[in-house]
Amino acid sequence: MKTKPHESSKHKSTDVNNKKAVILLSGGIDSSTCLAIARERGFELYALTMDYNQHHRVEIEAARRIADRFGVVRHEVIELNLRQFGGSALTADIDVPKDVDQGEIGDEIPVTYVPSRNIIMLTLAVSWAETVGAQDIFIGVNAIDYSGYPDCRPEFIEAFQMAVNRGTKAGVEGNAFHIEAPLVKLNKAEIINFGFDLGVDFSLTHSCYDPVDGRTACGRCESCLLRQKGFGDAGLVDPVGYDPA
Amino acid sequence: MKTKPHESSKHKSTDVNNKKAVILLSGGIDSSTCLAIARERGFELYALTMDYNQHHRVEIEAARRIADRFGVVRHEVIELNLRQFGGSALTADIDVPKDVDQGEIGDEIPVTYVPSRNIIMLTLAVSWAETVGAQDIFIGVNAIDYSGYPDCRPEFIEAFQMAVNRGTKAGVEGNAFHIEAPLVKLNKAEIINFGFDLGVDFSLTHSCYDPVDGRTACGRCESCLLRQKGFGDAGLVDPVGYDPA
Repeated sequence: MKTKPHESSKHKSTDVNNKKAVILLSGGIDSSTCLAIARERGFELYALTMDYNQHHRVEIEAARRIADRFGVVRHEVIELNLRQFGGSALTADIDVPKDVDQGEIGDEIPVTYVPSRNIIMLTLAVSWAETVGAQDIFIGVNAIDYSGYPDCRPEFIEAFQMAVNRGTKAGVEGNAFHIEAPLVKLNKAEIINFGFDLGVDFSLTHSCYDPVDGRTACGRCESCLLRQKGFGDAGLVDPVGYDPA
Repeated sequence: MKTKPHESSKHKSTDVNNKKAVILLSGGIDSSTCLAIARERGFELYALTMDYNQHHRVEIEAARRIADRFGVVRHEVIELNLRQFGGSALTADIDVPKDVDQGEIGDEIPVTYVPSRNIIMLTLAVSWAETVGAQDIFIGVNAIDYSGYPDCRPEFIEAFQMAVNRGTKAGVEGNAFHIEAPLVKLNKAEIINFGFDLGVDFSLTHSCYDPVDGRTACGRCESCLLRQKGFGDAGLVDPVGYDPA
């Protein structure tokens, strides 16, 4: 079993291209690994986190820790109160499902789906990218070990990229955006191994949708279950503690 | 010359279909006319306004007046501080151009372009539509008498519709969204006449990008110039007062 990695200069890319990238950073495993991939590829890192007044807002603290550790050029946390719309277990008074059978995760779109959340976050990323002069936008969606959210699928990412290239000044002036979803076809264990090899300190991350006392991972929601299975399959110890109850 | 219309029951549609529509309402002529079109077509009206901390935030008051006059089912004003990103004369310390030659408006994308603003607003509209169960989204973009913003063009609207139908639960479950841009091929005079005939009270609207003392239309920015020309061509008196300076 491998030991927990530490950030070190050996993970700094030598392929520096002085290009900027905007990376959507939620504070979980996938987005942290995405940030590491963008660093590895030599991008100047502009990390963007959306505070959508989610119940598990503690993930924003995780995003701040990770952005800080990676020494990003800028980290913006932009507020958008999606509770005004509701409609999701993450933003409204709807219970987060617990102890779902692992085999059933992803079969149906669950109540934790936040309407259009990834589309909104990607759109904000494009807006910021356009102002800072970045063309590459990284999002850590994956369509293998996931909850079945439609905005995690490659066919959406492809259509979205076309839309923003038609609807932005940068796009129509020939500086097309590239929406990079480097994890889209990896399973959770592969993502964890990938991040581990790139030096991601997973002890900084947060995944739980319904943290006990607002902080401690419950260990029973679909996000915790996917995370735990991923670490198990990867042969690694999850450095995050879980509620003992 | 026609006189200013008043809202009256004769403008209420008889083609009530009990379907909901989300209408993007900025408080200007185009979005108000869009709201009137949605009402005429019998939709239950859900008006959405984005407070993006624009310099001309007085338009939000106009949006509230209009939503109130139309008796919408709900009017949400959602805050998203795009000044965090900047990059536009409407959100950063960049002067709004004045007294631009009418013939040159729309030739180049001006500094009043807000990166991805319409894409963001449309995405928020889709998010809300999904939670309230609406499939129709109205946006008052037009690509004739406009400032050349890429996110006002039909080819963008079409691509965006495809993206959201691939990236939302409603879309993938067969309840496709329709992005309606009923003004897209009308010139400003036609829009004004259309709105007039549908009973829009244009005295409630606000168009100026750079209001004097934060309230009074300057009469010199591109938005004021397009509006004034539109009323002139329509043979109507613009009920909004302008800064006498």
